Amino acid sequence: MELSELGEFGWIDTIRRRFASIPVGANQGIGDDCAVLPLAEGQAWVVTTDMLVEGVHFLPDRITPYQLGRKSLAVNLSDVAAMGATPVASFLSVALPHSYTVEWADGFLAGYHALSEAFGVPLLGGDTTAGDRLTINVTAMGKAPLAHLKYRRSACVGDRIFVTGVLGGSAQGLCDLQAGHVDTPYVALHHDPQPQVREGIWLGQQPAVRAMMDLSDGLASDLVHILRASGCGAVIALEQIPAATSVELAVTGGEDYQLLLTLDARDASEVAQQYRNQFGKPLYEIGVIRQGAPQIEWQERGVPITPDWRGFTHF
Amino acid sequence: MELSELGEFGWIDTIRRRFASIPVGANQGIGDDCAVLPLAEGQAWVVTTDMLVEGVHFLPDRITPYQLGRKSLAVNLSDVAAMGATPVASFLSVALPHSYTVEWADGFLAGYHALSEAFGVPLLGGDTTAGDRLTINVTAMGKAPLAHLKYRRSACVGDRIFVTGVLGGSAQGLCDLQAGHVDTPYVALHHDPQPQVREGIWLGQQPAVRAMMDLSDGLASDLVHILRASGCGAVIALEQIPAATSVELAVTGGEDYQLLLTLDARDASEVAQQYRNQFGKPLYEIGVIRQGAPQIEWQERGVPITPDWRGFTHF
Repeated sequence: MELSELGEFGWIDTIRRRFASIPVGANQGIGDDCAVLPLAEGQAWVVTTDMLVEGVHFLPDRITPYQLGRKSLAVNLSDVAAMGATPVASFLSVALPHSYTVEWADGFLAGYHALSEAFGVPLLGGDTTAGDRLTINVTAMGKAPLAHLKYRRSACVGDRIFVTGVLGGSAQGLCDLQAGHVDTPYVALHHDPQPQVREGIWLGQQPAVRAMMDLSDGLASDLVHILRASGCGAVIALEQIPAATSVELAVTGGEDYQLLLTLDARDASEVAQQYRNQFGKPLYEIGVIRQGAPQIEWQERGVPITPDWRGFTHF
Repeated sequence: MELSELGEFGWIDTIRRRFASIPVGANQGIGDDCAVLPLAEGQAWVVTTDMLVEGVHFLPDRITPYQLGRKSLAVNLSDVAAMGATPVASFLSVALPHSYTVEWADGFLAGYHALSEAFGVPLLGGDTTAGDRLTINVTAMGKAPLAHLKYRRSACVGDRIFVTGVLGGSAQGLCDLQAGHVDTPYVALHHDPQPQVREGIWLGQQPAVRAMMDLSDGLASDLVHILRASGCGAVIALEQIPAATSVELAVTGGEDYQLLLTLDARDASEVAQQYRNQFGKPLYEIGVIRQGAPQIEWQERGVPITPDWRGFTHF
């Protein structure tokens, strides 16, 4: 059987089952945006890792080396933010074809460095090697009080569902690129995702925030992870989704790197108001958690509809 | 300028200089086998990451998926051992071509899992993606009392130099493979390196152990890292090197994943004896640290010789 038939999530399940034989102690592994390693005194490390491959995640002639360096770190900082943690270190592995120039490498490092500096995240190690295809792996570590960490499994029936920003812009950028338009604002969004680092830390500090994750595969795919982990369903009001262009791209498009969260209904309005005061932008309310199977009911002005949408996967 | 002209270590220096602007706090980054992140109560995390690329580090038709899975973790556990730390977690990223089968992936996981289980190291996360070339990145974390950690910079003039095992076997295996001999014991050594995990933990507990690192690029190349970091020179007695086959391969061959260490001369004999009692095998004494430039003087029965050897690099 080819691996593509098993699928990315099928293989992850296989890995999870096989490794269940090795005790993890107080640590928590696969299942959230980061692993969690508790420390003494109520603190914890979180750790995440992401691999970007030429031709799969990016086309080297479409993205500048600076953008690629920046994005390689951004997608990992987004995972740290999704836990409610503060990023503290990163590790960078790069397989570089022989033909790449020193100028390319300098541009890549400049982008990676700029985002590192913006959030004060030192690069503490890595690996460099030759390779036929440009491949980048970043591991990021973050720290937070254990009590501030947010998980996918914590959504409760009645929670209100929010996102931190406009969705579908990155997917629109990808469409624009594929249509040969390289200079649209959506292409910039696709190449320069903004990890919600300060927003994630602040949301981690709010006890009313129940479940949280980042939107990397698209709302339709990512929200189901929260629903499965929490054992509940959701209703999403399509007309409330802050769509960059079309609602379909906002729902199915990946790589927005906004945060998706559920809020205790009793405190939701107050937290949303405080968020707006803190960051000068809204938390967008898009739906509600309800009892039931881990599925999303899509509604348009209160009327259920049955679209044929799927999130992106890399297999 | 092509990156190959700058070289692997040249690029690492560029990275190090660029990131010097971001404070690392109490943490320690590039320069040892692992980064070090101190914790409360005198403990510390160590973190390392290694990338393996098809066609550069291995040929998929020469190594079984089980061996490749095992080796991917082994090279990282070796880095943790080289710091004197106990491995506690790993993270695995894999870019897999579409043509690979589920059977291949199961074999790979079985090898990775077997070594994980041997040392009780849970897999706490990772990433899976498609890719044209099989590429594997592992990040390993370890833990130790800060006082037990060993660095490259701690060698002192007069220290005696030791290695934990026979050298050059892996390089001989690579030669055998290139000559078409796939079943020699050296090929097995090349494909199944044994990370010196228990040895590294024990050596970390010995105050007489000064500098330590693992032998991944070959003695001639790796020892110079200790000399540069410690600001001293070394004399190596070629006839004392435990060579698998030729002395040249023992000195220049990579991927033995034995430990290289220096011992306070006053306690060296006693520690070596205790090591033999503990592990039933010798610590091999191969030379001495001396004042001078960070260079190795190779001697044959007390007579300096000037060979033309170089360690392997991946550029």
